[in-house]
Amino acid sequence: MKKIINDTKNILDEMLNGFVYTNKDIVNRIDDTGVIYRNFEDEGKVALVSGGGSGHEPSHAGFVGKGMLSAAVCGEVFTSPTPDQIVEAIRKADQGAGVLLIVKNYSGDIMNFEMAQEIAEMEDIKVETVVVDDDISVEDSSSTAGKRGVAGAVFVHKILGAAAEKGASLDELKKIGDELVDHINTIGVAITPATVPAVGSPGFDLKADEMEYGVGIHGERGYRRENLKPSKDIAYELVMQLKKVFKFEKGDRYGVLVNGLGATPLMEQYIFMNDVKNILEEEELVIDFKKVDALMTSIDMAGVSLTLIKLVDENWSDYLNYPVNTVAWK
Amino acid sequence: MKKIINDTKNILDEMLNGFVYTNKDIVNRIDDTGVIYRNFEDEGKVALVSGGGSGHEPSHAGFVGKGMLSAAVCGEVFTSPTPDQIVEAIRKADQGAGVLLIVKNYSGDIMNFEMAQEIAEMEDIKVETVVVDDDISVEDSSSTAGKRGVAGAVFVHKILGAAAEKGASLDELKKIGDELVDHINTIGVAITPATVPAVGSPGFDLKADEMEYGVGIHGERGYRRENLKPSKDIAYELVMQLKKVFKFEKGDRYGVLVNGLGATPLMEQYIFMNDVKNILEEEELVIDFKKVDALMTSIDMAGVSLTLIKLVDENWSDYLNYPVNTVAWK
Repeated sequence: MKKIINDTKNILDEMLNGFVYTNKDIVNRIDDTGVIYRNFEDEGKVALVSGGGSGHEPSHAGFVGKGMLSAAVCGEVFTSPTPDQIVEAIRKADQGAGVLLIVKNYSGDIMNFEMAQEIAEMEDIKVETVVVDDDISVEDSSSTAGKRGVAGAVFVHKILGAAAEKGASLDELKKIGDELVDHINTIGVAITPATVPAVGSPGFDLKADEMEYGVGIHGERGYRRENLKPSKDIAYELVMQLKKVFKFEKGDRYGVLVNGLGATPLMEQYIFMNDVKNILEEEELVIDFKKVDALMTSIDMAGVSLTLIKLVDENWSDYLNYPVNTVAWK
Repeated sequence: MKKIINDTKNILDEMLNGFVYTNKDIVNRIDDTGVIYRNFEDEGKVALVSGGGSGHEPSHAGFVGKGMLSAAVCGEVFTSPTPDQIVEAIRKADQGAGVLLIVKNYSGDIMNFEMAQEIAEMEDIKVETVVVDDDISVEDSSSTAGKRGVAGAVFVHKILGAAAEKGASLDELKKIGDELVDHINTIGVAITPATVPAVGSPGFDLKADEMEYGVGIHGERGYRRENLKPSKDIAYELVMQLKKVFKFEKGDRYGVLVNGLGATPLMEQYIFMNDVKNILEEEELVIDFKKVDALMTSIDMAGVSLTLIKLVDENWSDYLNYPVNTVAWK
């Protein structure tokens, strides 16, 4: 394992220290926890809290800031945060109008965020939860019942963040969130596996000429292995999988996210986006929003994921473009 | 070679297509060139133009936008852009107040930007050049006379971009630029080499347990190989090299950039920043500006560089924080 780290036991603490030190104009940390929260000026607005295991940087702490998340709870690498830390985040974030939890669909996260919600509700904090399950590659996997939650969560943060900033109520946000999740789908491809620092070796093997479609952001098995193809063929495979689910119709409005998985440089992400563009143009879709960046990573996995959001509500593209002050959403 | 690309001959064109498609609210491209320019509303302001070989994304095109660069000229991977393309960028960028070229110190870039400057001057465009040579790791190398120009160029873009936006003249910008270069130093470490797509194999070899201090952003040899050390030891080595050059004094004000070299995830960049922070605190320096991100990469090289700027002019930290609208500076 080749990484710029110290003791693997201290990964989370040292990373969060470096993150908060660098960005203390935007974020704070509750001491001795994985809770990152923003400087609030939000009396009466609903707070958004997300989180999950670390290793997906800049998710989710990089999206904490005005116009997006109120707080993020960071667990150990690929490990759900504990319910008590989630409760601390909820308490800190609540500005009197309730807290919406945005949770990626992994069994550990679901269980711990549910427990935290119950505890917070006993303290008379209003809490609702939106579960993001955007990964269409496999129906169930080793760590999830149902579809996994991946990069589409960032679109949910962004759109709900803008809606919350504009004063939407907790019930309204829950409703928008559930509708969003129905219109966001993602599929990815890995060309090299990630190495969890405490494990020290890659989570799975891929031969020098192999790639795997549908790998999860913790290295969960995907749906097919093939020899490495040109970018345009990979783009075609992923767009066609999304087409099956969305049932593209000419003129439909979409937003697109090409997401680097950690070790894939921007050069490749942009080349891949160019191929996606060509295929979406053939499909005669209207693309109202585009983004290329590494936003939901899997440590040092090489590969990309492709997320589409069907913009059925015209507010959604405004909300995607609404100004924010976060570390990671430009 | 495992990359998400198509024909290696089309890397630059496809990447720029994807880049402009994604970000057309901010940037445009002169057709059939590597020139990326911003939507101007800058009558009478000095234009800033940078560029160089590609493979360093988001540099430099990601810094084109209001408050930073007016245009960037993107050469083929690790290859200087041609003088005629640089001239096209100068013509496009000039708003009547002249053009400042910001050039990283590589022999090919210096030669081509100089030729472009001469041609533009014959067309009565006022042009000045600031050469960035911030890499303190080696005095001369295979591709440079003198020190190489690396991530410190981004601080030069940012500070001069703010000064230009505030209306500084070409002469003033040239003067600030030269002073900036005297107060910015960088040193890096590579733990895995980069692979140029058209070459297909890594530019140099590093054993599974080795790292190399001072490697250039095109894989130029550094100053020492060692077994891979913990992040805090790497941070100590790099800070002490910078200390020798800057001659730290207690209370001096600095800005810090921890820059990922392409394949190194944010997790490691933040852990490294945390170690840098601890050492700078021991040195009792005042750190007024901090940034962690992959801003000057070397394709898929793993490693980090550390840039310090001594903030001898109090405008400089304001300028570092001045709002911009670019793809890559958040």
